[in-house]
Amino acid sequence: MKLGMVGLGKMGYNLVQNLMDHGHEVVAHDVNSEQVHNISAEGAIGANTLEEVIQQLETPRIIWLMVPAGDITESVLSKLEPLLESGDIIIDGGNSNYKDSVRRGKRLSEKGVYFFDCGTSGGVEGARNGVCTMIGGDKEVFKSIEPLFIDIAVENGYFYSGELGSGHYLKMIHNGIEYGMMQAIAEGFDILEKSEFDFDYQGVAKVWNNGSVIRSWLMELTENAFSKDPKLEQIRGIMNSSGEGKWTVETALDLQVPAPVITLSLLMRYRSLEDDTFTGKVVAALRNEFGGHEVVKK
Amino acid sequence: MKLGMVGLGKMGYNLVQNLMDHGHEVVAHDVNSEQVHNISAEGAIGANTLEEVIQQLETPRIIWLMVPAGDITESVLSKLEPLLESGDIIIDGGNSNYKDSVRRGKRLSEKGVYFFDCGTSGGVEGARNGVCTMIGGDKEVFKSIEPLFIDIAVENGYFYSGELGSGHYLKMIHNGIEYGMMQAIAEGFDILEKSEFDFDYQGVAKVWNNGSVIRSWLMELTENAFSKDPKLEQIRGIMNSSGEGKWTVETALDLQVPAPVITLSLLMRYRSLEDDTFTGKVVAALRNEFGGHEVVKK
Repeated sequence: MKLGMVGLGKMGYNLVQNLMDHGHEVVAHDVNSEQVHNISAEGAIGANTLEEVIQQLETPRIIWLMVPAGDITESVLSKLEPLLESGDIIIDGGNSNYKDSVRRGKRLSEKGVYFFDCGTSGGVEGARNGVCTMIGGDKEVFKSIEPLFIDIAVENGYFYSGELGSGHYLKMIHNGIEYGMMQAIAEGFDILEKSEFDFDYQGVAKVWNNGSVIRSWLMELTENAFSKDPKLEQIRGIMNSSGEGKWTVETALDLQVPAPVITLSLLMRYRSLEDDTFTGKVVAALRNEFGGHEVVKK
Repeated sequence: MKLGMVGLGKMGYNLVQNLMDHGHEVVAHDVNSEQVHNISAEGAIGANTLEEVIQQLETPRIIWLMVPAGDITESVLSKLEPLLESGDIIIDGGNSNYKDSVRRGKRLSEKGVYFFDCGTSGGVEGARNGVCTMIGGDKEVFKSIEPLFIDIAVENGYFYSGELGSGHYLKMIHNGIEYGMMQAIAEGFDILEKSEFDFDYQGVAKVWNNGSVIRSWLMELTENAFSKDPKLEQIRGIMNSSGEGKWTVETALDLQVPAPVITLSLLMRYRSLEDDTFTGKVVAALRNEFGGHEVVKK
């Protein structure tokens, strides 16, 4: 098939390579013209503007967006919208908030454009060699783009998840679960680290990856990390986050789902961003006020 | 090698079969003589008493305990102790508390008996076809029993974890991580269940097992569970626990490790045991007292 790819960052670039490996023709665009130049050298049809993307594709067009969620996705879509025609298909493969995807899909449907929200997991390596995707949108039209997903995914690594928004919703929950699993693994190793024993963490992660109940890709990554740095001495414990965990917690709150583990995983990330906390100062001050307990002075 | 197995429950029975598959000779004992009879029919040497186990083994003896942790392990060990001789080896493959194992190992070392605490993971299927074990105890003597672990484990599925107690400590932490991972997965599906979308949970778990970041054995079990009962309508959400999660939390408290996710996973299990809570009554009563908010009457 022939399709456009807008966004040639780490994920988009590798997806184009993956698509081309499977015989698809890709019109590739990025605001960074160097990326367009590079991917053209690998066989893609370069496009320096969104107009060029449109011109190079026959209707009904298929255009895959792989750009950062939020303002950039919104901006690209509003530039594309006037150029699109009834029957065209937009796939948002980024980490958009599912509510934005529902809104965008409804807006585009007014002019007959089909919008698919596609959650993408598996990292850069997955984008290149076999991704995991979950896709929401029109069920009938999905069949026309299904071959793309079959080709770029690992076996059984794509899932039509239902109506508009459901793909990004699933990806959001996937990331929420990921937060919880990572925090659980990390807490476990912390209780090893502070114990009376002297464990070989790489060995621990390795045995847990072979036959145990907690064997998982995340534990394999844990094994990799400890193989490079046995006590992670070169890394500070600062846990950034990029939005999906927060959306999961916000959604849990809206739906009144008691999800303490995913929530605390997010809050522990926030805690890790601070060297000292105002909470700590307040509690120390209060202990001093009522009990005369000494505070640690600055 | 020749060894004794005390305890022919689900785990012990399957371990004996696994050991025999690998050419080991097993003297098998259980308080339930039917189990002894059954395993003898499969080629084990039956023993109806602990004394018979001792008599059937040449010194130095190797005796594997696979009995419930706590009082039963304590009782079996105290009956065995006077029968053991210097150089004999005891392997506790059950889910004993690591503190008990340290105490027992020290006591047995006084009469020259070597004690190994062996954490065992992988469930009944693992016990039969390839287990995951983590073993603490004397490093030199371990070499003499290492062939057993090589044979019964999956590839790379055994780990000498260090000094006495470290094997059961590792298994405890493994289970703590398991609690957190399971609760994270479960909360994720709960936020799917209460959403505006109608997801096919088996399909969701399946796609997450193929190429996603959260692919794991637990997610495969999730897929299995939903394949049998798409909305788990035949199951009540009562989450029992068997001690290791609680010990992990107690250990985290003793070592002052902030482990909120593992802790909350345990507390949510306790919450699930109650249809109604006294906490709920107290909060409802207080909201009524200060704000006149209506309570739901019994």
